Order: sequence, then structure tokens, then C-alpha cells
Amino acid sequence: MPDTRTTAESGRLQEEIRRRNLGTLLRHVHLDGAVSRAELAERTGLNRSTIMGLTAELVAAGLVREELPVGTGKAGRPSLVVRPESDRVYVLAFDVAVDRLVAARVGLGGVVLDRVETVRQRAGADLDSVVRVLAGFGRRLHATAPPGTVCAGIGASYCGMIRPGDGMVRYGPDMGWVDQAFGAELGRRLGLGLPVAVGNEAHLGARAEQLRGAGIGARNLIYLHGDSGVGGGIIVGGALLDGEAGYACEVGHMVVNPYNGRPCMCGSRGCLEAEVGERALLEAAGRPADMFGWDAVRSVVDAADRGEEAARDALRHVGDWLGIGVANLINLFNPGVVIFGGMLREVYLGSAAHVRVRIADHVLAVSRERVKLRISALADDTTLIGAAELAFAGLLRNPLEAVPEREPLAAER
Amino acid sequence: MPDTRTTAESGRLQEEIRRRNLGTLLRHVHLDGAVSRAELAERTGLNRSTIMGLTAELVAAGLVREELPVGTGKAGRPSLVVRPESDRVYVLAFDVAVDRLVAARVGLGGVVLDRVETVRQRAGADLDSVVRVLAGFGRRLHATAPPGTVCAGIGASYCGMIRPGDGMVRYGPDMGWVDQAFGAELGRRLGLGLPVAVGNEAHLGARAEQLRGAGIGARNLIYLHGDSGVGGGIIVGGALLDGEAGYACEVGHMVVNPYNGRPCMCGSRGCLEAEVGERALLEAAGRPADMFGWDAVRSVVDAADRGEEAARDALRHVGDWLGIGVANLINLFNPGVVIFGGMLREVYLGSAAHVRVRIADHVLAVSRERVKLRISALADDTTLIGAAELAFAGLLRNPLEAVPEREPLAAER
Repeated sequence: MPDTRTTAESGRLQEEIRRRNLGTLLRHVHLDGAVSRAELAERTGLNRSTIMGLTAELVAAGLVREELPVGTGKAGRPSLVVRPESDRVYVLAFDVAVDRLVAARVGLGGVVLDRVETVRQRAGADLDSVVRVLAGFGRRLHATAPPGTVCAGIGASYCGMIRPGDGMVRYGPDMGWVDQAFGAELGRRLGLGLPVAVGNEAHLGARAEQLRGAGIGARNLIYLHGDSGVGGGIIVGGALLDGEAGYACEVGHMVVNPYNGRPCMCGSRGCLEAEVGERALLEAAGRPADMFGWDAVRSVVDAADRGEEAARDALRHVGDWLGIGVANLINLFNPGVVIFGGMLREVYLGSAAHVRVRIADHVLAVSRERVKLRISALADDTTLIGAAELAFAGLLRNPLEAVPEREPLAAER
Repeated sequence: MPDTRTTAESGRLQEEIRRRNLGTLLRHVHLDGAVSRAELAERTGLNRSTIMGLTAELVAAGLVREELPVGTGKAGRPSLVVRPESDRVYVLAFDVAVDRLVAARVGLGGVVLDRVETVRQRAGADLDSVVRVLAGFGRRLHATAPPGTVCAGIGASYCGMIRPGDGMVRYGPDMGWVDQAFGAELGRRLGLGLPVAVGNEAHLGARAEQLRGAGIGARNLIYLHGDSGVGGGIIVGGALLDGEAGYACEVGHMVVNPYNGRPCMCGSRGCLEAEVGERALLEAAGRPADMFGWDAVRSVVDAADRGEEAARDALRHVGDWLGIGVANLINLFNPGVVIFGGMLREVYLGSAAHVRVRIADHVLAVSRERVKLRISALADDTTLIGAAELAFAGLLRNPLEAVPEREPLAAER
């Protein structure tokens, strides 16, 4: 009896190892776009015949293709290059930001294949109206996808606190949402038979920048996302800091100015986002109360570049508070990189000197030895790409089983 | 050839699994003091015969003993109870705090067997003088240990920023230390042929409270340690937050009062430790400048309990700032528990209401749903026990090989 059990266990272990190896290979191809078999062998420590067997399985599943590399100039038989089937396997990604609603079809390999976007009205955005727009976008993207393509997952980025597991928006201050079943409702309205994975925009942004942006390979990364407020995504030892229930990283509500602080949407006062958010900058620059949005923020940074004193003062003021916030985070997290994304990209570019002065003033010398400050490399798509990566997660965990309803490929018909 | 290789690999894997299982078993016994074989089987998922074989190995190595349990009242053959050989296997633990130098012999199972302590003069504590005292303590503890006992490791807690790996004190503001080779020097002076593992006091305190104190089993825990300043140890997803180079968790240097803040030892202003540290409390209570130390802090809390207005005002003031700091940490980490240790235990007990008001004011409702506030359960020994656990780490990783110079046990001679 022990022998039988050992054999069965050993079989399960083998199968588990094979599944993991398939996922690892597909992940490399997905993230790099094109990797030679030799490189895959080197990175994974697997021998070439194992790599060949695994890629053959991925090819058969329609997930990757193998090609002869374009002339390498080296002697000997060249190693085949493995590429993701970006045109064939895709996810639907949604981005619910303060200013806009975006939907995209993103191919394996992270290629944005198709995209729709609309300006979002700030007032009166209830669950029904937001989901109706997104579901319409999503169904259209799916319906117009070429024949033989397959949707491997759905992900959405939302500007609020998200319950892991079911995509419930626990708190979306900008829209006034409390406990709204966003993920479930979007999934139902899309009607594609796939669940919608939802994440907080800055959490997803952190992951996107770590995988494809300004923090590639970083194990300890802080991503600050400026929308109208400030969100945070913090990667600790390679993994997202989620805390006890998934609600960590609320950087925007770190109190930096407790006694003279501006009121914050959350009901508190002197929060980082109250001091450096869109409203703080526009008011400090003397802009009218009906100006808002990224374009307005950009116009202040541009005006400062052109020498406008009010705009420069505003950036100095906001940069000062941003620097205090970042200094606190460096003391707390000893990160390798801090990345400014969304609207904070512009704000940081316009106030980097002030931010750096604050870091020099407030961060312990030992804690700042290794830290780099960067702007996001994925521009306006950081959170959208993060949503796409969330959608790809199932496929990368289990490449051969995560595409249940795969349609026949064109070549097979 | 593949078969031979598979067999060799399989052998290595088996050996690795056995080693891990031994470590896991010893860890359970070490942390719980006494665990029945049946309970060990239940916790590890290993069957009883495997448990029997592994405990036999640990018994042979002199690490545990097995005993019949005291009458359980149940029918049937009782499961043997496994206990750590606390009197036989010990570590040396050192604690360098602002006020005191402590050394102890701590037995497997976490039992303090023997202990020496001296008040530390605040001024003029150079590396040589500190190490001389500690090495003297350590050698004496080791020399007076009963025959047949064995030292399995050495650990030290230090009130400053420690480079992982070699125990270099990168920054010890209280003693004015910069880049002092504390771990290496203490190891050399002890002359026991064992390296000294060194950790930051609050990092070690967090681990100690998680293993044996107020945070047992917590996966997301914040430990705040009050010495003269404020240290932090933060556990994220079960592991200590160490950041890029081991210097994370500098909670005491989070700026909470940037414009009206008190000057801090680090050279900055308005740091949490400047607002809630020993000096801030004693000055707010109108105590003379030559009063300091834990006893002085305790006397203020006692005076407040007796109704002294100045002491009450001081605690209100300090509790207010402490609350802001803790609120920020809860927003950032979404922890399960926040533990106040060292001097902050007294301060929190005297100001809990103010701390809680600040948390209610500044923490997002979703983020505070699960958080508990606790005082340390290991009293004045939190950091010392943390140092002991650091010293035991090698033994628990590899129980049969980490005691290289094991002396013959009394029974064997």
C-alpha cells in the first residue's frame, strides 16, 4: 500500500511541477514578447528537451508560436524564438478612473489590440450607469474580435478600496460608493461567462510598473498614483502589500499636516492627498474652481515651465508636501524605487527639486542609500495594463486549463 | 544515466524534506513548550510513524525528551508528550537598550535560565566599552552553565539600524554610533566560536510578540517599541518588513508635525519619536531636565493616574501624536494588530482614549475593521526574547547540524 500511495503522490507532484513550468515559461514569453528556447532554458534551469516539450504543449494550446530568429550572425543552429500569440489570446481590461472610463482588448504579451474610452462625468456616477457604459464597451470589443480569438480573462481597475475575491467596492470616495458589487455586476452585464477580477488602481499600477514599467525586477517598490487624489501600491519583497483584508497602501490618507491641513474627501484633514491632490495644486495656482482633471494639472506644470510665478509657487508648495509623504514612505519601507504615476507624474516632473530636498531633510541616510525616484514608464496606461495583468493571472497560473471555452483556431477549421 | 541522476536527486529531496520536518517539529515544541505526538501529527499532516521516527532523532540529539502525559482522563493509550530540553540546550541573548545592557542564557522553549543586567550610562558608550561589558556577561553565563549543556547560538538586540548578515551597526543615534562592527566584535570577544546574529530591537520585538506575546499567529502586525525614541517592527504577510537592505520600519522617523515639530536626534524635526518619545513626555509634564528613563516615564503615568493635571495633560498631548502615527500606520498596512511595547506600553496605557480618538478621526473605516490594539505581553523582555529567537533560528532551520560543538551529555559520560 505505501508504494501505491507514493506512486500516486509522485504522479500528482510531477503534474504540479509540469503545470508550474508551463506557467513559468508562458510568463517569460508574456512579459518579454519573444524569448529564445536557449534563453528560457537558462532562466528556468530546465534542460533543452524539457523546454522543447513544454513549448510544444503551449504551441498546441494556441498560446505561443515558435519562429526562426532573424539572422543572429552566430554560427551553428540558431535557437528557436518563442512568441506569445498576442493576436489570438486576449483579455478584456477596464479602467474606472476619476476622469474617464476605459476598456481595452489586451493581447497575451501585453499588447493593447483595441481600445475605447470616454470622459466620465464626475457627478452622479452610480453603479448602474458606470457598469452600463463598461459592459457596452466590453461586449463591443469582444464581438468585434477576429474569429478564432479567445478571451482568457477579465480584469478591472477601480479608483477605490476593493474587497479581494469578489470585486466589491468597499469605499469609492470620489463616486460616493460604499459596498457596491461592482465586479459581480460588471461580470453579469458582460455575459461572457467569465468572472471579473477587480483591483485598486494604484495596487494594479504598482504591479504593472514592476512587470513592464519603471520598476522591472524591483522587489521593494512604491507606486504613487495621482488621480484626483493619491493612491498607493506598495510591493514588499516582490509581493503586493495587501494587509489583513486587502486594504493596505492607503498612502493618500497618511496625515502629514494634522493641525493646519486641508479637509480631505475621507472626512479627515491634512491627508497627503488633500495636500498634494489635484484640488490643492489648482487652488494654490489660483485656478478657477471649475477647472479640473489631468489637462488642468498639465496646464499648471506647463505654465510653471513657461515661468508663471503662481504656477511655480503652487508646484513648490505641493512638491514640499509630496516630499514629506515620500520621505515617510522611504523611512518606513526602505524601498529600491519610488514611482510617480498618473497625475503625479506631471506634478513630480514639475517639483522634483522640492521633493528631493524634503527627502534629504527627513530620511535617515542609511534608508535612502539605494532608493531611486522614477516616473511611470507606462504613461496613462499604467492602471489599464495592471487590470490586464490581473486578468492574465489565471492563464499564467494554469496555462492549459484557464481557457475553458477556447474556440477552434482559424487554421483548424 | 537519467535514472542515477533521478535517484540522487530524489535522495537529496528526501533528505531536505526530512530536515524541514525535523525543524518544523522542533519549532512547535520550542514555541509551545510541550506538544503531544498526536497534536504534532495533526499540525504537520505527517503520520504517526513519521512523527515517531523524527522525534526519536530529536531525542537522540538531546534536543527534546518524551514523557507520559499526566493523567488525561481519557481511555486508551495516551499520546506521548514531547518537551524541549530547555535545561540542556540554550542560546546566549543580549539586549543593548538605551538604559541598560542585558545578557541571558535562554533555554530551548524560550525559558530564561540565567540573566545579568546593568544600568547603562547614556554618555560615552563607545563600541569597546559596550562590548567589554556584554562579553564579560556572556562568558560568565557560559562558564557557569551546568556541565553537559550546549550553546546553540548567540543573538543580540540593538537600539539602532543593523546591517543584516554581519551585525554592523549602521546608525545608532542614541550612542552616536555610525558603522560600528558590533556583531563581529562581540563574537570575537566572547571567543565561543559562534557568530553573533544582531537585529534591530523593534524588529526583534515584533517577532517575539508574534511568536510568544500579544500577536501570536498574527500575519500582519505592527510593533511599536518605546525606548528613549520609538522603533518599529512590522510583520507583513507573516514576514518581517525589511525592505531593500534591511532598514525598513523606521516608524519613529515618520514626520507627523513638519512645521511646528520638536527637533529629533536624527537631525530632522517633527518625527514621531520627537513628539512621543521620553523627552517629549517628560517636558510636557514639566519634569526636570535631569530626569530620564523608563522609571521617569512610569512616574508620569502613575502621577496621571493619581490625578496630577500636568501629567494628564502631558499624556493627552503625547497620546494625540501617538494616535496620529498609529492612524497613518493602519492606513498604510491594514494590520490585524498594533502592539505597544517598551516604554510605549506605559504611555499607551495612560493615553489609550486619545490614541483611539485619533484613529477614529484619521483611519478609513474599511481599514480599521479588523485592527486590535494591544500592549506587549512579554513586558520588559520583548527585545531580549527577540534576540534569543534570532539565536535559535539556525537550530530550528537545521536541528541536527546547528550544534557543531555539542558536548557529551551527562548521561553519556
